Amino acid sequence: MKRTEIRALFASAPADGASVTVCGWAKTVRDSKNIGFIELSDGSCFKPLQVVFEAAKLENYKDIAKAGVGTSLVVTGRVVLTPGAKQPLEVNADSIRVLGACPPEYPLQKKRHTVEFLRTMPHLRPRTNTFSAAFRVRSVAAYGIHKFLQENGFVYVHTPLITGSDCEGAGEMFRVTTLDAAQPPRTEEGAVDFSQDFFGRATNLTVSGQLEGEAMATAFGKIYTFGPTFRAENSNTPRHAAEFWMIEPEIAFADLADEMDLSEAMVKSVIAYVLETCPDEMAFFNQFFDKTLLERLNALINSDFARVSYTEAVEILSKHNDSFQYKVEWGTDLQTEHERFLTEQIYKKPVFVTDYPKAIKSFYMRVNGDGKTVAAADMLVPGVGELCGGSQREERLDVLTARMDELGLSRADYEWYLELRRFGTVEHAGFGLGFERLIMYLTGIPNIRDVLPFPRTAGGF
Amino acid sequence: MKRTEIRALFASAPADGASVTVCGWAKTVRDSKNIGFIELSDGSCFKPLQVVFEAAKLENYKDIAKAGVGTSLVVTGRVVLTPGAKQPLEVNADSIRVLGACPPEYPLQKKRHTVEFLRTMPHLRPRTNTFSAAFRVRSVAAYGIHKFLQENGFVYVHTPLITGSDCEGAGEMFRVTTLDAAQPPRTEEGAVDFSQDFFGRATNLTVSGQLEGEAMATAFGKIYTFGPTFRAENSNTPRHAAEFWMIEPEIAFADLADEMDLSEAMVKSVIAYVLETCPDEMAFFNQFFDKTLLERLNALINSDFARVSYTEAVEILSKHNDSFQYKVEWGTDLQTEHERFLTEQIYKKPVFVTDYPKAIKSFYMRVNGDGKTVAAADMLVPGVGELCGGSQREERLDVLTARMDELGLSRADYEWYLELRRFGTVEHAGFGLGFERLIMYLTGIPNIRDVLPFPRTAGGF
Repeated sequence: MKRTEIRALFASAPADGASVTVCGWAKTVRDSKNIGFIELSDGSCFKPLQVVFEAAKLENYKDIAKAGVGTSLVVTGRVVLTPGAKQPLEVNADSIRVLGACPPEYPLQKKRHTVEFLRTMPHLRPRTNTFSAAFRVRSVAAYGIHKFLQENGFVYVHTPLITGSDCEGAGEMFRVTTLDAAQPPRTEEGAVDFSQDFFGRATNLTVSGQLEGEAMATAFGKIYTFGPTFRAENSNTPRHAAEFWMIEPEIAFADLADEMDLSEAMVKSVIAYVLETCPDEMAFFNQFFDKTLLERLNALINSDFARVSYTEAVEILSKHNDSFQYKVEWGTDLQTEHERFLTEQIYKKPVFVTDYPKAIKSFYMRVNGDGKTVAAADMLVPGVGELCGGSQREERLDVLTARMDELGLSRADYEWYLELRRFGTVEHAGFGLGFERLIMYLTGIPNIRDVLPFPRTAGGF
Repeated sequence: MKRTEIRALFASAPADGASVTVCGWAKTVRDSKNIGFIELSDGSCFKPLQVVFEAAKLENYKDIAKAGVGTSLVVTGRVVLTPGAKQPLEVNADSIRVLGACPPEYPLQKKRHTVEFLRTMPHLRPRTNTFSAAFRVRSVAAYGIHKFLQENGFVYVHTPLITGSDCEGAGEMFRVTTLDAAQPPRTEEGAVDFSQDFFGRATNLTVSGQLEGEAMATAFGKIYTFGPTFRAENSNTPRHAAEFWMIEPEIAFADLADEMDLSEAMVKSVIAYVLETCPDEMAFFNQFFDKTLLERLNALINSDFARVSYTEAVEILSKHNDSFQYKVEWGTDLQTEHERFLTEQIYKKPVFVTDYPKAIKSFYMRVNGDGKTVAAADMLVPGVGELCGGSQREERLDVLTARMDELGLSRADYEWYLELRRFGTVEHAGFGLGFERLIMYLTGIPNIRDVLPFPRTAGGF
């Protein structure tokens, strides 16, 4: 069977009367006695194809008219150009064959469903407009990131998921094990004997590929990771998932300014790519999720991001302490309310806040000349707050080990990481972008459960 | 500091005498009294840059001449075109500054190291030729796959890593847990109470994203997964890793022939893309790993893959049973020796073997009209044997449930999967390609530990 995808049919501008075979699922079926209309989707594009069918032409007219939403069909017919209408063409059916029926208990009947209801059926919800648009944008955004980085000479690195170490103590971790849960082997002292576990040691799911990424950056110069990351935090919020995807670029011979240039260019590039590639999906989100979405995204890609030091930002913000739930003072981390105030009220565009107090940042960040702050930069964007966070890494062995000692980190655990400084150390910097946060920003979808195809969150699945 | 990447320098054809600043790590440093030579690599390309430095020009000539392998440097100098030489240009240094010294205990001194030795230092080995080439090819191949599939309208899907189910019982799984290993909560009967685990149930690391991929394919028509996959098998072989990456495309309104067309086109496309994008790396592998590599890969992309049924293949092979360790007979699975004989001796090109006995294949494969075989297809390639395996999926609800009952699979566990057949079922098909196996095939590297940046295998890490 030679069939034409609906996307290709719309794109190809066929002649009026051209013969065509299309397959798809009926999104709606309407009929009025002798003529019926099917909205047919094959998933190749957001917009459905209108199929017109007539009692005069189809022997099985009545069966088709009764076909349930979700029925899969093969339609052979003729293209009818409809220049005045919403869609440029429709298909007038010469024959319609049912591939798979869809009974009335199909949950996706033609009516509004709440996202909460749809979350209970992750295997079916991608057939709805919202999730079809969300997951296509997700796919296109992922590719946009690969495209930007590959075209700029970055090497894509698969850092390990199963790990023995905890980067920066970034949170609770999942244990990975093949030991018998009920009767684990024990040491003489009665502790669980992880030396008998699969890898001969206790292992966890990674919370970040950054440290391994640094090792690769000091070989390839420019690398990125793009893979799953895990947090076993019991935070049942719209913004946290236990399993999510991160992009972590890392560049050598580079400082914090280079890192900001890169993250700004990458975020602009992926947003522009999605706007260009998914106009129908983005128009849908702009209409149903956030009326300012397109305006906000277009403003972002056309702005030069501002840059302000944390110290300066605290000065600015503390003048407005009356309007904040949490008061700002030097030394404390910025809350979302402060971040949004800065980017929405003060700068009215994205802004990098740089040089945070070292006490509130990670051990690997480069200590500035003042001894009090580190070369970190968070990218804040209107409507959201922090979109990604980066830093220049501490490349000086003595400063790094002193900092680790200060924080009580074991040098032995990080021996390989220290060797990157011992053997031809170079200035380097990088950032981490939570992929789901980017998709939420791109679509206006407010809950992380609705941008992940099969979400794993504290609430279970 | 405005620096030029070495890749850009080679690509840009600068004028003789042009001033340039490059950064990198010294791969070798040689000197003979008043003139010295550095092979400098910044990781941006496979070939190093030759830097010439002279006592007459550099105050720190003696320090540079003594710099250890691995030292990181900033070199400012003039381009000297060298049309007759191996490299099109070199740089004559006006100044060289040491960024990071590299002491003699640096393990990557200029001599041959075994891959086994290098495996003990995954953070440093990407600085060697072999691993630099391997991991760049890996990156380019990954992008080549995304590029081919995205340009052909596929939607990239992130299927979950943490899962409650075991696709097709494909092997031992890792448990993912946050329960106290020493004192897990117990039910009244004394069993471990997984309802108190993080997700309120026992969870594992996925062995395949196929089933979720099928759900997405019946919404988008054409999808692919590309993500990590896990097997807790205690097989300490050169071909097995506990953590590896898989690509699993899935297409709707498609049968086994469409699946073979797709996998053939994809494999050809990614190989062609790597050959075109990484000529230096591929020449290196052809020289040091497999002298027939380029010939074999070029033959593959220019051949039309053969197709033969399992039944026919068994007939052909059984005539040569004398030369096999395992004799071939209908009903048994093909061994690598048989696969290689077929593709290397009989067809002398890649071949799909189709329609295997259902008893040796998975429950979800479509049962053929003969009732004995299923619509499966393994792609066999010279030098390796099986490169990927695919099938048409059983779309008939009654046949699928009968098969599951036969195999003792619980319908309740697969309820959502069965709903894909209950609600508008369509013919669909897909395949799985082990990414590391592809990279081994592309590079001639015989051990999976050497194509994974940070391998996780049964031997530990």
